[in-house]
Amino acid sequence: MKTMTPAEARAKIREGAITCPTTGMCPGYAQGNLVVLPKELAWDFLLFCQRNPKACPLLEVADAGSRTFAQFGAGSDIARDIPKYRIYENGVLTRETTDVSEYFDDPSRQLVSFLIGCSFSFESDLLEAGVPVRQIEEGVNVPMYNTNIPCQSAGVFSGNMVVSMRPIPHALVPAAVAITAQMPRVHGMPVHIGCPEAIGITDIAHPDYGDAVTIREGETPVFWPCGVTPQAVVMHSRPPFVITHAPGHMFITDVPNAVLKL
Amino acid sequence: MKTMTPAEARAKIREGAITCPTTGMCPGYAQGNLVVLPKELAWDFLLFCQRNPKACPLLEVADAGSRTFAQFGAGSDIARDIPKYRIYENGVLTRETTDVSEYFDDPSRQLVSFLIGCSFSFESDLLEAGVPVRQIEEGVNVPMYNTNIPCQSAGVFSGNMVVSMRPIPHALVPAAVAITAQMPRVHGMPVHIGCPEAIGITDIAHPDYGDAVTIREGETPVFWPCGVTPQAVVMHSRPPFVITHAPGHMFITDVPNAVLKL
Repeated sequence: MKTMTPAEARAKIREGAITCPTTGMCPGYAQGNLVVLPKELAWDFLLFCQRNPKACPLLEVADAGSRTFAQFGAGSDIARDIPKYRIYENGVLTRETTDVSEYFDDPSRQLVSFLIGCSFSFESDLLEAGVPVRQIEEGVNVPMYNTNIPCQSAGVFSGNMVVSMRPIPHALVPAAVAITAQMPRVHGMPVHIGCPEAIGITDIAHPDYGDAVTIREGETPVFWPCGVTPQAVVMHSRPPFVITHAPGHMFITDVPNAVLKL
Repeated sequence: MKTMTPAEARAKIREGAITCPTTGMCPGYAQGNLVVLPKELAWDFLLFCQRNPKACPLLEVADAGSRTFAQFGAGSDIARDIPKYRIYENGVLTRETTDVSEYFDDPSRQLVSFLIGCSFSFESDLLEAGVPVRQIEEGVNVPMYNTNIPCQSAGVFSGNMVVSMRPIPHALVPAAVAITAQMPRVHGMPVHIGCPEAIGITDIAHPDYGDAVTIREGETPVFWPCGVTPQAVVMHSRPPFVITHAPGHMFITDVPNAVLKL
């Protein structure tokens, strides 16, 4: 799976030959979060992302009803190229499935698909520069926390930023900032360094999403805007119908991470 | 006018005490292009900007009907804080005015205002680094050209990119690229260097918009994506109603240019 092109990987996923999380697949290529909303909510959501680009870095928005991300995945099928999807109705998870064609095919729905950047992209740059990424070392999901940092609201969507946390050795914190600052299309630089209480995190050992990781002596917790923010904000408004990817089961794009720096 | 804050400058403009172009006002603060469209065209235009961020770097989108850019100009009045506006109906310029309140006040219209980044921001960085900006030296408008570089279309909006051109001494071309690459929210790095024919420009001495400038021996023409692109694309579709700023009469924001690098 390390040597497949993104188009080959998406084809394997489409035919059902890959159903696992996409972590580590097609190294060097960006992967993205998926949010699919009915057209009547799409304007507010697009505006929310435009106003909160660090938490919600939009890579691409498909035409209403379209099943292809033409720029980031030529020939892709949004309804089948992700290994696992989640369906939410009125804010409640009602189904997990590997194929959401039936929802796109339903003429009563005009679905709009949003592809949102993911920190997988900057983590490979951190590792290449010798900055450790703890949750990868420990084989768990990144720890994520609700904060008191308000997002700019847009229409029905409002809420606080969700952040991901990586413990960084003191001497490498400036490098971690500089490296991620180069990639604003995948969350960019940290939003906060040290002192979790200052952004409303009272118990660093118990993340609100994902898994706890070890913070060693001589390390600072560093917090980045997180792609869970748009999902959390969408669910908070209890929309009638939403499709997302299942955690870790991302859309693999044709775009190299390096291109996202431009 | 060099010592006013952006809020003070906007207040002077609002009361009619400033009616001239905003070039040179509030140095260090970003200025922006304005496009105001009826709500029914706003989705397509927002999508067009999202898909073409280099030509159309969106700084802020106001709520439908709102007259304030809350993030970039707290307390601003979009309908009066620009020294001169242009009204286009069915693609034809029908009026220039200093106050467009009546259109925003009309309950039959639901106007959406878009603030788009402008190359004024990166020109001050070029000058500070010793890179000459010819049209400023010569006291004219920057030369702009239609190209054969297609934009990604969105709904009713499609067309080719418009570029601005600055002649740069050979030895300073890499610096000009590096400096502007740091500011993707105001067009970012050049789209093309040298050889105008390669992007469909056949007569460099006769720009399609703005004024010709001198290209000296030992200089390369360098082309950047231009904020005229969204206006050109909008006009091409002949929408029933559009408001824009008059050329050179920009919206002065509260945001320092340096912040646009983050």
